[in-house]
Amino acid sequence: MSARRIPMISSTGARLLSTGRSELFSGAHRAEGRAGGPPAQRVRSLTSPACLLCSSSPVRALSGLSATRQGLPKENMAENRATPRAKVLTLDTMNPTIKKVEYAVRGPIVLRAMELEKELAQGVKKPFAEVIKANIGDAHAMGQQPITFFRQVLALCSYPELLNDGTFPEDAKSRARRILQSCGGNSLGAYSASQGIDAVRQDVAQYIKRRDGGIPSNPEDIYLTTGASDGIVTMLKLLVHGEDATRTGVMISIPQYPLYSAALAELGAVQVNYYLNEEKSWGLDNSELQRSLDEARRHCNPRALCIINPGNPTGQVQSRQCIEDVIRFAAKERLFLMADEVYQDNVYADGCQFHSFKKVLFEMGPEYSDNVELVSFHSTSKCYMGECGFRGGYMEIINLDPEVKAQLTKLVSVRLCPPVPGQALMDLVVNPPQPGEPSHDSFKKERTATLSDLAAKAKLTEQVLNTVPGISCNPVQGAMYSFPRITIPEKAIKEATDKGQLPDMFYCMKLLEETGICLVPGSGFGQRDGTYHFRMTILPPTDKLKILLDKVKEFHREFTEQYS
Amino acid sequence: MSARRIPMISSTGARLLSTGRSELFSGAHRAEGRAGGPPAQRVRSLTSPACLLCSSSPVRALSGLSATRQGLPKENMAENRATPRAKVLTLDTMNPTIKKVEYAVRGPIVLRAMELEKELAQGVKKPFAEVIKANIGDAHAMGQQPITFFRQVLALCSYPELLNDGTFPEDAKSRARRILQSCGGNSLGAYSASQGIDAVRQDVAQYIKRRDGGIPSNPEDIYLTTGASDGIVTMLKLLVHGEDATRTGVMISIPQYPLYSAALAELGAVQVNYYLNEEKSWGLDNSELQRSLDEARRHCNPRALCIINPGNPTGQVQSRQCIEDVIRFAAKERLFLMADEVYQDNVYADGCQFHSFKKVLFEMGPEYSDNVELVSFHSTSKCYMGECGFRGGYMEIINLDPEVKAQLTKLVSVRLCPPVPGQALMDLVVNPPQPGEPSHDSFKKERTATLSDLAAKAKLTEQVLNTVPGISCNPVQGAMYSFPRITIPEKAIKEATDKGQLPDMFYCMKLLEETGICLVPGSGFGQRDGTYHFRMTILPPTDKLKILLDKVKEFHREFTEQYS
Repeated sequence: MSARRIPMISSTGARLLSTGRSELFSGAHRAEGRAGGPPAQRVRSLTSPACLLCSSSPVRALSGLSATRQGLPKENMAENRATPRAKVLTLDTMNPTIKKVEYAVRGPIVLRAMELEKELAQGVKKPFAEVIKANIGDAHAMGQQPITFFRQVLALCSYPELLNDGTFPEDAKSRARRILQSCGGNSLGAYSASQGIDAVRQDVAQYIKRRDGGIPSNPEDIYLTTGASDGIVTMLKLLVHGEDATRTGVMISIPQYPLYSAALAELGAVQVNYYLNEEKSWGLDNSELQRSLDEARRHCNPRALCIINPGNPTGQVQSRQCIEDVIRFAAKERLFLMADEVYQDNVYADGCQFHSFKKVLFEMGPEYSDNVELVSFHSTSKCYMGECGFRGGYMEIINLDPEVKAQLTKLVSVRLCPPVPGQALMDLVVNPPQPGEPSHDSFKKERTATLSDLAAKAKLTEQVLNTVPGISCNPVQGAMYSFPRITIPEKAIKEATDKGQLPDMFYCMKLLEETGICLVPGSGFGQRDGTYHFRMTILPPTDKLKILLDKVKEFHREFTEQYS
Repeated sequence: MSARRIPMISSTGARLLSTGRSELFSGAHRAEGRAGGPPAQRVRSLTSPACLLCSSSPVRALSGLSATRQGLPKENMAENRATPRAKVLTLDTMNPTIKKVEYAVRGPIVLRAMELEKELAQGVKKPFAEVIKANIGDAHAMGQQPITFFRQVLALCSYPELLNDGTFPEDAKSRARRILQSCGGNSLGAYSASQGIDAVRQDVAQYIKRRDGGIPSNPEDIYLTTGASDGIVTMLKLLVHGEDATRTGVMISIPQYPLYSAALAELGAVQVNYYLNEEKSWGLDNSELQRSLDEARRHCNPRALCIINPGNPTGQVQSRQCIEDVIRFAAKERLFLMADEVYQDNVYADGCQFHSFKKVLFEMGPEYSDNVELVSFHSTSKCYMGECGFRGGYMEIINLDPEVKAQLTKLVSVRLCPPVPGQALMDLVVNPPQPGEPSHDSFKKERTATLSDLAAKAKLTEQVLNTVPGISCNPVQGAMYSFPRITIPEKAIKEATDKGQLPDMFYCMKLLEETGICLVPGSGFGQRDGTYHFRMTILPPTDKLKILLDKVKEFHREFTEQYS
């Protein structure tokens, strides 16, 4: 190892929290070996270059070792390592696939936002009074209130003594009793079956049947999961193997939710991009699917097609026709379909409606419903619940080969079971208070209020952003995000490039430093070359959202002026 | 695909739950291509052969497709597949590393036990009235009661309205307030930081410091996890890569907890076995570590050494000297140490004491404490808590390369965060009621009662098993399991082998069918060739444990008689 070695901290997680001797920057993307400027310059400059390929921003790395590796004069390797022996596990010797993983939603800009919050708390003077985080779909953190009924049942399940408490409604108690009776030893603390609690899976199947107009769902096809992410990664694991020249390709939309790219990187699979059509409200054209697939077939073996509907980060809601087209395409091209439907209750735009892939598949008749392999994911984290912290979710698998299903059951058994409180919560989501039950009215009221509020904020976001010259925002038909396109002047692009930053990261970092608003650059999700976007959640409370939008408006105006 | 193809269902998860047309058996281990007898025979025989390599038992597979693949005369492939197209995802085309995964703790014998329970519930006559499951360390399922204080705080956190309820003790309320204040939006439903809630990590560090006699712990070195399993798999992921000829080797004890072998199989790493010394109460000799390592170095690159202390499945508690020896060995041989310490409160035997690897490492002085890379795992699932369903846990990393630590932080961010209720519970475990607080006495009483009960059952298990001719059981010094050695007569071994079963699986399956007792064969954990064991938890309530032990005693006597 030499002192001339280029620092190799991955952009996303590069904020090193351990103690160290000097503050320095590092954001070079190792595999490609890019790093702007000589080491000393990078070390000293607060806006030093970072990787052009991975949407990284400069981030601080507090580490004596890193310092020596960057050739700081007073701390050379030999001195530093006189006593300490070389590590077993280093960036050089660690699993190379992990290094390729990126996850922008919690990337460098968010780490910087957290720093700014701490600085504000310490009284450091900033041009803003608070950091507003619109980077992640974390509803409760933004002030959304949980559904009372859900929390009552969870409290009852956690501490069953409360079943004797007269203040809890009877329907909450009966739900809690049913859940506890289906737990080992009547306790949330027992492991459940690895596939999930039987009674919960039955309720999920009933929910799907109701949702899909009577099309049956089999509880044996339901797997409860640790959030939807867990199910998605598990299914990708089954599908891909990266050991030979015919590597598995998985088609994902661009823009995408970066869990997909992260999981594929880790699994050593090929990410096959198909582009959503921004001009058509982020719609999906089959011709683009075909183009993407045909190109991919030249160098890998595409086997699966992932769809997010309603869309993340793009907020579109697919029409029934579009879903049919996708299914037909998957059938024709023999692709395994993965439908990420965690925003199924988040539909706001007039004329839009959520259609599940399962329902459309079955309405297309046995030629499709007997053949197309489909998995659909849902979660407790989004919709009107926003219960991200509980990590609840389920997936329904359709037409999975029974032998593969046995392998799936085996695979999930190694992790024992999904968190049982999350399973209980999933049960409540699929089996909420019914008309006539004591909690029904308040449940309905709370649910409607949350969804109406989100709908209003979706509209507001689109409207305000579209008043800004240089920003254009498609309708936020569903989900929780806007993904507006921003015009970045040539001069700004040049400045960003000179600093080794992607232009949209440069833009968002500047926005954060000047206004305290935390958004995620479009490059973290993927976008057509030469276009720039950011993802912004619609979750802040209306008053804060208005402030946020006004600040973005003002910032964009000034930014454009400054670089024109 | 041909009708002559050998069925390839992996033993562990082979019970196919989907609808199908015929009942058949399948347990062949594909990679090795072993399967006893011609297909038709295997299909029809209830005790048909299974894999000799993977401790599988015959398990029922309900699948029309499987039937055709096994060459059943009336259901050939062509007929069956006239309409359905071939699947995208089949056993042939799925990720091959997943197929190699085995997890005996939830393997075929447990699936059969669940079937038996259903049969009993349906009124089917059996030679026993109930199934007693001693296969898994699932304390609450076996009737152990949760700690009242923990559950009160969880209820308060779930439904903060209860903070106004006068019946809850003040210390429970103040804990709940502290946890909620450290959650986004004061809600368990918000995502936490990916590394875990700051306040919880601080409490964990304080706990470690107290436990280890003042040796400091840095909250930045604490990662909260989804049970200990999650942490173990995450660290193995960083450590291993299986793409070239110098594949990573990871040393694990034999017998082992099969999460390790499962994770290594999935990651494509080499499992390097070192044997615990059964004659010395499952002690660990450095000479055996050396032998194992030297052999492994001929064909792979061993980089990590995993230790489970107190032992699972073997119940030994390592002496301080032994831990020092292991650390010295790891330092000398440059191995990354992984210490699975989830049973740290489960120490029963006189003269035994839990010593953490961290503490011993630091007491050995800077030559070791500045150098040896160590990660230690803990969990809410074991000890006196037994809260498996919450999937809480933490890991502490020592001397991890800062750049690798950044990669670790990035990696865990992709899954957003561990379940927040599990984090809250972990916080209570490391920060329980203190002397002077209102809940202290009852907490202490409950904790002591549970641990004393476990100690008594550990003693009882050892004593009764050692009265049985042909069974010898090492002292259950700690953890939750006995792992007695059983003598299986030659005639029984032959009958098992003829049926394609491992002798200890044959034994355990017969025990289950005749007595309703569910244990896990030793082969699921690994054992020296020619020796046989089973793992049995000490968790059933004392009255049931006595029945269980008497039944095992009687069964073993009859089994020995029958096959002598």
